[in-house]
Amino acid sequence: ATTFRASEHQHIRYNPLQDEWVLVSAHRMKRPWQGQVEPPLLMTVPRHDPHNPLCPGATRANGEVNPYYDGTFLFDNDFPALQPDAPNPGLGLSTRLGPAPGTAKPISLSFLPPTPPSKVMCFHPWSDVTLPLMSVPEIRTVVDAWASVTEELGARYPWVQIFENKGAMMGCSNPHPHCQVWASSFLPDIAQREERSQRAYQSQHGEPLLMEYGRQELLRKERLVLTSEHWLVLVPFWAVWPFQTLLLPRRHVRRLPELTPAERDGESSSWDPGARHRMGIALVGPASWPQAESQALIPDLASIMKKLLTKYDNLFETSFPYSMGWHGAPTGSEAEANWDHWQLHAHYYPPLLRSATVRKFMVGYEMLAQAQRDLTPEQAAERLRMLPEVHYCLGQQ
Amino acid sequence: ATTFRASEHQHIRYNPLQDEWVLVSAHRMKRPWQGQVEPPLLMTVPRHDPHNPLCPGATRANGEVNPYYDGTFLFDNDFPALQPDAPNPGLGLSTRLGPAPGTAKPISLSFLPPTPPSKVMCFHPWSDVTLPLMSVPEIRTVVDAWASVTEELGARYPWVQIFENKGAMMGCSNPHPHCQVWASSFLPDIAQREERSQRAYQSQHGEPLLMEYGRQELLRKERLVLTSEHWLVLVPFWAVWPFQTLLLPRRHVRRLPELTPAERDGESSSWDPGARHRMGIALVGPASWPQAESQALIPDLASIMKKLLTKYDNLFETSFPYSMGWHGAPTGSEAEANWDHWQLHAHYYPPLLRSATVRKFMVGYEMLAQAQRDLTPEQAAERLRMLPEVHYCLGQQ
Ligand SMILES: O=P(O)(O)O[C@H]1O[C@H](CO)[C@@H](O)[C@H](O)[C@H]1O
Ligand SMILES: O=P(O)(O)O[C@H]1O[C@H](CO)[C@@H](O)[C@H](O)[C@H]1O
Repeated sequence: ATTFRASEHQHIRYNPLQDEWVLVSAHRMKRPWQGQVEPPLLMTVPRHDPHNPLCPGATRANGEVNPYYDGTFLFDNDFPALQPDAPNPGLGLSTRLGPAPGTAKPISLSFLPPTPPSKVMCFHPWSDVTLPLMSVPEIRTVVDAWASVTEELGARYPWVQIFENKGAMMGCSNPHPHCQVWASSFLPDIAQREERSQRAYQSQHGEPLLMEYGRQELLRKERLVLTSEHWLVLVPFWAVWPFQTLLLPRRHVRRLPELTPAERDGESSSWDPGARHRMGIALVGPASWPQAESQALIPDLASIMKKLLTKYDNLFETSFPYSMGWHGAPTGSEAEANWDHWQLHAHYYPPLLRSATVRKFMVGYEMLAQAQRDLTPEQAAERLRMLPEVHYCLGQQ
Repeated sequence: ATTFRASEHQHIRYNPLQDEWVLVSAHRMKRPWQGQVEPPLLMTVPRHDPHNPLCPGATRANGEVNPYYDGTFLFDNDFPALQPDAPNPGLGLSTRLGPAPGTAKPISLSFLPPTPPSKVMCFHPWSDVTLPLMSVPEIRTVVDAWASVTEELGARYPWVQIFENKGAMMGCSNPHPHCQVWASSFLPDIAQREERSQRAYQSQHGEPLLMEYGRQELLRKERLVLTSEHWLVLVPFWAVWPFQTLLLPRRHVRRLPELTPAERDGESSSWDPGARHRMGIALVGPASWPQAESQALIPDLASIMKKLLTKYDNLFETSFPYSMGWHGAPTGSEAEANWDHWQLHAHYYPPLLRSATVRKFMVGYEMLAQAQRDLTPEQAAERLRMLPEVHYCLGQQ
């Protein structure tokens, strides 16, 4: 009998967090690729474009003028998916075809509080940077802004979804570095799955699922990508996207605002203040724009994120596209209930598979049957581990 | 209080078949699109290319030479995702992080029977046709081939997934008209969800979920796209993709091979034998290639599929990309168990949203929280209903 090798032999793996399975067919990487090749990324984004509605000083679709912000900037989405004052639908199929009693979400989204729950957050005043090219202190302001918006919208909404779509390949329609925040009066499907799995695990084993999972990965090491005093980055055992990662705090933390100063302040910066000059980017712009590179104390989370995203960019020497987002315990009026089974985490879902222009397509089999991946999570973790932590655009002296 | 209008006001809808929710934010169609535009489709596919491994007479990666087939042609995938003889993995996390007992799939895929369960099916000997450009009798041979392969692989496997990825945008790497068939020794995730929902519905209401659903849609009409004596096509109430449709037989049918002659023979053809000439395609090729256009009796299923796919192509005057696939009752060694809760159906998942080059991106919020759509299913159904049933490439005299 042949010995099993995950990189040679198909198998299926279970995702205990979202109660799903993935088919791993690593031998498929051997097939030639004759399909769609994405257009190469053109690095022609101007630092400041007065017609870009995300830029400082620009006028947005609703006529409002952006301030000359110098850190992050949060505003209401001009084309929100979630409206604050939608009336009661009262439409639907017969109740026979509704959800099973007890599992139902409210079908109506009416009676939402009057604050628009759909926001855009600019990470930086410049359009030509991305998180891995920002300084660690600059990324720290993003982390702080994420924590505040979670607190602000979480006061009224049970779910606050922070997500970043990076790159045109991920449907991002504006190159200015930004994320979105959509709050809702219901737990979205994936939140619901994570809620069910984590609650069941805690009640059976008396500790949070992701605490146990992180511990196992720290021992096994083969799927670890980065570790710091307070955080881990790993390719989960059940990863679906080729270079998918999971970012986890080591301590039991339920939500972003709970992060302690120790978790926010870590090792000292490897940021090189001359880097932007060497990229041919002159340090111009309104005098109030950030010049924070000289700060000494830098945050742990911001630093590990910068390292991860640098590795991502280095993998195929491109500005690596992805969707990422944070999941933490539900908020809103029941925030004070027992959510100890929740562990804060971020998912990174990047689409590229073979090169800067050849992506994984989640189509046919994946849409109709089950997720399927073409290299093992261990192979992906190893490739990411080996990559330098200095950005390929910043490395050459 | 404002009156609810689905096309103006956000709401969420439940999918009773897959136990999922979708956020409908139709007002988002008003926002301008500045994001990625897909490359326009180049119609430069040669009818016959001896280097294309799907063409009649071509040599494939494993050295085998294709016959000069004149209808459909089925062969083993040279780069299969599912290998017949994979050894037992015996890898994994601690069992604590495994699936709940009782809900488990076999984690090992070993001990599969020795027939390769991953196949490719060519629809036609010509590379420059697609299903909507094929004649109804030609499509009928595809339907028959789907039924046979379900029977053949279903004798040994509990799940036989037939799926077609059409278009480069859907990860299709070969323009020759074809689909794939992946059989597995387990029920894939989505099959599992449909199994659970349909079983629960039947045991509660005494009839198949999709029979009741089809009846409701026939009465309401607003989501119907096409009907024939034996079939319906509708945009499901819970559609996620902009122009997603569901193809359902009117009678209770569990699997493709069960379709009766009546369901396979329907109204007479609207096929125009001169059409290919007008498209500038000369009728050349080995003498044995199909000349079936003159047949009079044509199949109902083939005919409604041709109409649906013609409407799809007409929507944006392009060869409409999609992934589609069939779902029917599980097969394999338990095929004789009671699967009466299952109703055969096909899902069509097309990505285009605004034009031939602007697609819907299922990214950030959709990957991390919940599916979200930007026009209502009723709006989509109405647009599809209004479109001509003659293909835009064949219409001009
Ligand atoms: O087998 P193909 O057509 O080369 O590959 C395509 O379909 C497969 C099944 O849906 C997907 O896993 C691949 O990502 C896609 O590119
Ligand atoms: O709001 P944006 O960035 O214009 O739109 C993008 O993100 C949304 C949320 O993930 C998606 O629904 C859209 O399909 C995508 O293009």
